[in-house]
Amino acid sequence: MSHAPTPALSARHVQIRQAIAAHSLDALVVTSLPNALYLTNFTGSSAIVVLTAGQIFFITDFRYVTAISEMRGMPYECPGLDLVVVDSSYDATLAGLLASLPVRRVGFEAQNLTVARHEWLARMLPRGETSGPELVATKGIVERARAIKDDYEVVTLREAARRLSIVARDLPQEVRAGRSERDIAMAIDARVREAGFARPAFDTIVAAGPNAALPHARPGERRLVEGDLVVLDFGGVYDSYCVDLTRTVSVGRAGTRVRAVYEAVLEAHDRAIDSVRDGASRFAIDGAARETLGRQGLADAFGHGTGHGLGIEVHEAPHITRKRTVDDADDVTGEAVATGMVFTIEPGAYIRGWGGVRIEDDVLVTPRGVEVLTDATTGLIEI
Amino acid sequence: MSHAPTPALSARHVQIRQAIAAHSLDALVVTSLPNALYLTNFTGSSAIVVLTAGQIFFITDFRYVTAISEMRGMPYECPGLDLVVVDSSYDATLAGLLASLPVRRVGFEAQNLTVARHEWLARMLPRGETSGPELVATKGIVERARAIKDDYEVVTLREAARRLSIVARDLPQEVRAGRSERDIAMAIDARVREAGFARPAFDTIVAAGPNAALPHARPGERRLVEGDLVVLDFGGVYDSYCVDLTRTVSVGRAGTRVRAVYEAVLEAHDRAIDSVRDGASRFAIDGAARETLGRQGLADAFGHGTGHGLGIEVHEAPHITRKRTVDDADDVTGEAVATGMVFTIEPGAYIRGWGGVRIEDDVLVTPRGVEVLTDATTGLIEI
Repeated sequence: MSHAPTPALSARHVQIRQAIAAHSLDALVVTSLPNALYLTNFTGSSAIVVLTAGQIFFITDFRYVTAISEMRGMPYECPGLDLVVVDSSYDATLAGLLASLPVRRVGFEAQNLTVARHEWLARMLPRGETSGPELVATKGIVERARAIKDDYEVVTLREAARRLSIVARDLPQEVRAGRSERDIAMAIDARVREAGFARPAFDTIVAAGPNAALPHARPGERRLVEGDLVVLDFGGVYDSYCVDLTRTVSVGRAGTRVRAVYEAVLEAHDRAIDSVRDGASRFAIDGAARETLGRQGLADAFGHGTGHGLGIEVHEAPHITRKRTVDDADDVTGEAVATGMVFTIEPGAYIRGWGGVRIEDDVLVTPRGVEVLTDATTGLIEI
Repeated sequence: MSHAPTPALSARHVQIRQAIAAHSLDALVVTSLPNALYLTNFTGSSAIVVLTAGQIFFITDFRYVTAISEMRGMPYECPGLDLVVVDSSYDATLAGLLASLPVRRVGFEAQNLTVARHEWLARMLPRGETSGPELVATKGIVERARAIKDDYEVVTLREAARRLSIVARDLPQEVRAGRSERDIAMAIDARVREAGFARPAFDTIVAAGPNAALPHARPGERRLVEGDLVVLDFGGVYDSYCVDLTRTVSVGRAGTRVRAVYEAVLEAHDRAIDSVRDGASRFAIDGAARETLGRQGLADAFGHGTGHGLGIEVHEAPHITRKRTVDDADDVTGEAVATGMVFTIEPGAYIRGWGGVRIEDDVLVTPRGVEVLTDATTGLIEI
């Protein structure tokens, strides 16, 4: 279970119910697990939430019945939760529940429900000219709420970032010539757990020398040698919330080119952070990093976005990227970032056959500008 | 990258092309990542494969371009792969590719594509009375092929199971009174990596005493005490293939009730394995375990299915469960299991407030019956 206090969950329910009413819906079916967690504190692997104006139904299977009942009376209990135990299958149970409720327009999460499940559900629901539920596609109702963190989430993410910064601070103890990428990744994972995280937020990246030119390299048997640049990208899940941090370390004294590329990426990182404020365009924040690298001739070396939202998922809204000519199906937030949003700033430069640099921190948009949640030196570390 | 040899990939392409032709399709869009891995050996986190009668297009973004080009000339190179680098977004790139091909009926994976992406794609494709691609829902084309393992996959899974059995054999060195569930889980994870796995296949379960009554408990701070039953459920990913194993250990000498429940679960496990053969009903295999537990008055204590397929995913077809009154949207295989299928057999008994027992092994259906891939004592271990 996650631990958002009951009043915080109540406030989330109020907010989603307002959105349901604004869409002229009688109910919203939440099939996205991170969204279900946000509304109920449930951290298991299978559940469907059905929210109506007055009720919140929670469909899960027998494996989680005990865990749900143990939330009762706790300060993080989900208010008003009506447990429905799966009989034969989740979707059959959902169809049965919807058929039993006095609901007509039922929103579903079009960015989560597959075409196959949608067709199956539509077929299973009772049909009638004037009665019976009708499925209505919705996009991002819960995700938009999640993009603005509430007080509990800010406190949790701040604490998570503080703990991850300790892991970053201690990196020099793990990185040394002769050690393999894989061994260092395992040592980082152990430190992430020792720092109080339930688990790493993603597969830890330790990419040394030419491997550092691959932004998503998998740690391998390659042993570090003098002169390597090493990109170390790791994250942790703390009370269900994800934080994410990258540092680039030089094994031995860094040469001129390393220093030049590192300084360019660091300047891009700093300028992007400086551009963060309530109402700033997420494309402009990305542009601040991209233009800085472009001025150093590194435009083509920076192929990914500048950042991504953090929260229950390690990649969520807002996406700090270039503006696209067409929105894709999964965009949920508008252009402006807003107070309460938490996201990464992680420019990089990747040069094939040579290596790469990435520097990543986590920031919170505040009424006064920006708070950098992670706190560890961003200067080039030479080991 | 995964390492299926090029001829094995070719054979998979031939098989899927036959299915495409049988469905009167001109192309299949593969958006499921495990399916894309199966067809190309690609293990990154984003890709779309488009298979036509004569070509295989691989859409990915700049992060993976180097990794793809490094496959060239290797014995596990994907044959005929035509790389398409994402420009603004994956789906926009896909729409552009489809519009440029002489294809009319384009299958998509209805069990993977969301309603939102489907609507977006349908809107972006050029329209015309007699030309322009038309999206056609398909279900389980690649998943059905994946359910029958080829020689490379059998060898890989056999080796993975052998390595996981070593971790199981050494469990008594990690389980002892005074140690916390969480510490034991971390020690198991380290042993899984030492045994040659890239990573655990899922969050390791160490559930002691009353926690063992929760089939999906998360390891916590609870320290083992004399008299605890401890369920240990762990898995590993070896060259992209998942194996999964559970043992239940008694801390100290087991009492009469523990022995009785353990023996019942073990008998259910053995009878289910004995019932596995080419052509056997997956519902009958489940029934063999369920009826055995029922005869011991433990029918209500066994709430989950008897097993699940193993492969690129840790839960895939076939599902060894009770027969449902209605199929759900995600069923892809029929009732009979067949030579080449690999799945778990994992009956359990969970008694609230008391604890639980689960015993899990991995089996392969062979022309002669069944091969148990995992190999470690199933007798009750007392520590």
